[in-house]
Amino acid sequence: MSTPWCHRYAQRTRTVKSSAIRELLKLTQSPEVISFAGGLPAPELFPVREFQEACNTVLRDSGATALQYGQTEGYTPLREMIARNVQRYGIEASAENVLVTSGSQQALDLVAKLLINRGDRILVESPTYLGALQAFNLLGADYVSVPTDNDGIRTDLLEEALRSGPKFMYLLPNFQNPAGVTMSLSRREELVYLSNKYGIPILEDDPYGQLRFEGEHLPPLFVLDRANMRPDDHYQNGNVIYLSTFSKTLAPGLRLGWIVAPPDVISRLVQIKQGTDLHTSTFTQMVAYEVARNGFLDEHVRTIRSVYKERRDVMLKSLEECCPPGITWTHPEGGLFLWMTLPEGLDCRELFHTAVKNNVAFVPGDSFFAEERSGTRNLRLNFSNAKPEQIRIGIRRLAAAIETQMEERNLAPALV
Amino acid sequence: MSTPWCHRYAQRTRTVKSSAIRELLKLTQSPEVISFAGGLPAPELFPVREFQEACNTVLRDSGATALQYGQTEGYTPLREMIARNVQRYGIEASAENVLVTSGSQQALDLVAKLLINRGDRILVESPTYLGALQAFNLLGADYVSVPTDNDGIRTDLLEEALRSGPKFMYLLPNFQNPAGVTMSLSRREELVYLSNKYGIPILEDDPYGQLRFEGEHLPPLFVLDRANMRPDDHYQNGNVIYLSTFSKTLAPGLRLGWIVAPPDVISRLVQIKQGTDLHTSTFTQMVAYEVARNGFLDEHVRTIRSVYKERRDVMLKSLEECCPPGITWTHPEGGLFLWMTLPEGLDCRELFHTAVKNNVAFVPGDSFFAEERSGTRNLRLNFSNAKPEQIRIGIRRLAAAIETQMEERNLAPALV
Repeated sequence: MSTPWCHRYAQRTRTVKSSAIRELLKLTQSPEVISFAGGLPAPELFPVREFQEACNTVLRDSGATALQYGQTEGYTPLREMIARNVQRYGIEASAENVLVTSGSQQALDLVAKLLINRGDRILVESPTYLGALQAFNLLGADYVSVPTDNDGIRTDLLEEALRSGPKFMYLLPNFQNPAGVTMSLSRREELVYLSNKYGIPILEDDPYGQLRFEGEHLPPLFVLDRANMRPDDHYQNGNVIYLSTFSKTLAPGLRLGWIVAPPDVISRLVQIKQGTDLHTSTFTQMVAYEVARNGFLDEHVRTIRSVYKERRDVMLKSLEECCPPGITWTHPEGGLFLWMTLPEGLDCRELFHTAVKNNVAFVPGDSFFAEERSGTRNLRLNFSNAKPEQIRIGIRRLAAAIETQMEERNLAPALV
Repeated sequence: MSTPWCHRYAQRTRTVKSSAIRELLKLTQSPEVISFAGGLPAPELFPVREFQEACNTVLRDSGATALQYGQTEGYTPLREMIARNVQRYGIEASAENVLVTSGSQQALDLVAKLLINRGDRILVESPTYLGALQAFNLLGADYVSVPTDNDGIRTDLLEEALRSGPKFMYLLPNFQNPAGVTMSLSRREELVYLSNKYGIPILEDDPYGQLRFEGEHLPPLFVLDRANMRPDDHYQNGNVIYLSTFSKTLAPGLRLGWIVAPPDVISRLVQIKQGTDLHTSTFTQMVAYEVARNGFLDEHVRTIRSVYKERRDVMLKSLEECCPPGITWTHPEGGLFLWMTLPEGLDCRELFHTAVKNNVAFVPGDSFFAEERSGTRNLRLNFSNAKPEQIRIGIRRLAAAIETQMEERNLAPALV
């Protein structure tokens, strides 16, 4: 008797939605397609020469250490560097507050394992990062969603949602994926106040915070939470776990992210990580440290900011010039994405197929919601990966696809 | 109100045992201690020069690809190479049967997520690999244990255990960690027969299979299971998931392992891996492929085998010469470990503390059991990491520690 595997799968493999998106995105792989779909950094900015030098240095000076098993917490000089870097944003941290993860996606998995029992409700923004929903789904999460607007999560709707008893809140305050919006300072303060009032912890995901093109940096929720604490609570009972990554500043192919949290939380996460993948590659950690140290990372981030700002500006200008009236989009102050809203009567999935025929791609907005049938009039557009001239052409193709759809639906642009 | 994190942790964080071992092993970090505790490869064998060349080639020829996001399944040429390599052992596989994982530990996590619901019983060998218990514990597993002897798992006791309805069996047929024993051919056949009779799948973990020093290679359970299948079942309904790794043949610091399974199982595991860490480092995968290709891996494995065989022989001879009567140990035909049994009246944890004072370390045997209070008279000794002269000195120190313990317990060696 052979076992049909499908009868063996655990109840948690609720991943059909992600699978559908994977299938969709395969349609966008053709070289003719200009893709605004991925969340890919600009590969021409990768510091390849610096990586070559760093690999040679690490293997020459410490080859046996770099290729051997390492400690689960991460490579100590890298943890210290991460602690120094987050201190600039007011986050009080030392190496013992830092766990290096195999990309920021793994940080979501580890926190999910630490906090989620099957059926626990997680409070998420609507829309939110698809990969977080995938990580939380694997542990059997349910959701309570709170809408966002141009100032981030609608804190006026938050208290009611918190009364339903979520296990934690998952939030992306800076240049949110997918919406590109940033949570205002007053919303941040309100959010931290409510987090403390209801005793609901916050998982603050900040992959893009360093990529701000304009405006003032706003304090992380982690910092505002600490400011609320009694002095004797210091370091032990902070209410926020903070995540970030090297994927958007150095290279995603390394798979290096990190968690900043109170030492008690870190030590439990270390035990969980040990059972999950033992530790993150010693070699990539040492190479990343070698590339980043001595100020190179800061210099490189400045380059990335200026290139992405130009691409964002080109995309905004092209949208302004090409899109029929009735279409709106967000104005991100940083990051990689903007979020478009179509007029009533259009559907993002139908548009997707027309757009791919026109050789341009995006991610349909309904991928980014915990609940069904939301975001059907939205699209996420990435502006970091394509070069300016490609962005101009791609947006013209997208606008043409939208017009085709409007005509098919008898929504003449002039009438909208 | 600040939230005490401990009130938030999910029920699954049952990791106290692993934590105790981590604390123990910290005692063994001092440079005076000769450690047989870790599972570390010999660092002087790492092909550092080949890695340097490979890093230069990969970054020069494909830097932008190596540093960018990659596909969840893994780097295609590496998957093809893995498929070719396992074919030598009779495993019929192509790239679509292979998922690259962030070390073999991650393979355990992914399979646990695929198959384990809280409270599911997993059938394990007694003793078994500690890291598997850690991975399965995170998903809320319970266990049914079946003892092993010098021919591997006691298949005469298996049928009763299978009647209790385990979700799957987790087995290490070659040079088992920790016991160093190899499952005989007749036991393998019996096991596969019973797996099919009761419809209970097998997770076959084979990190050490290539490191055989003597005797004939035995067919993997994966192969014996396929041989049992009807021709029309071919490829779809195999009853075995097979795991292995580059950690013992190239370098553990890369964190590269793999899963071989039917395509249907692989495609579910790919979805789970996407939510877990998106994908394994593109860079380390491309570098490992570049190092391993053109026959270098085979040549290198031959070197490792001959070095580890010498170290095993030195350890066996030293044990023979130094140990008081009444102590027994296994004779591994390959791999990294052997397993010692102390006489009645001694305790491995007490011995551990005496041994560390004597500047020698091992892992106490009770770490390797799903149930409490087993293995209290056992120790796991690693012979791959220390050089022959260190092994001789270390075993003398260990034997002296055992004699001290025997005297304290009034177990004069002559009386045992």
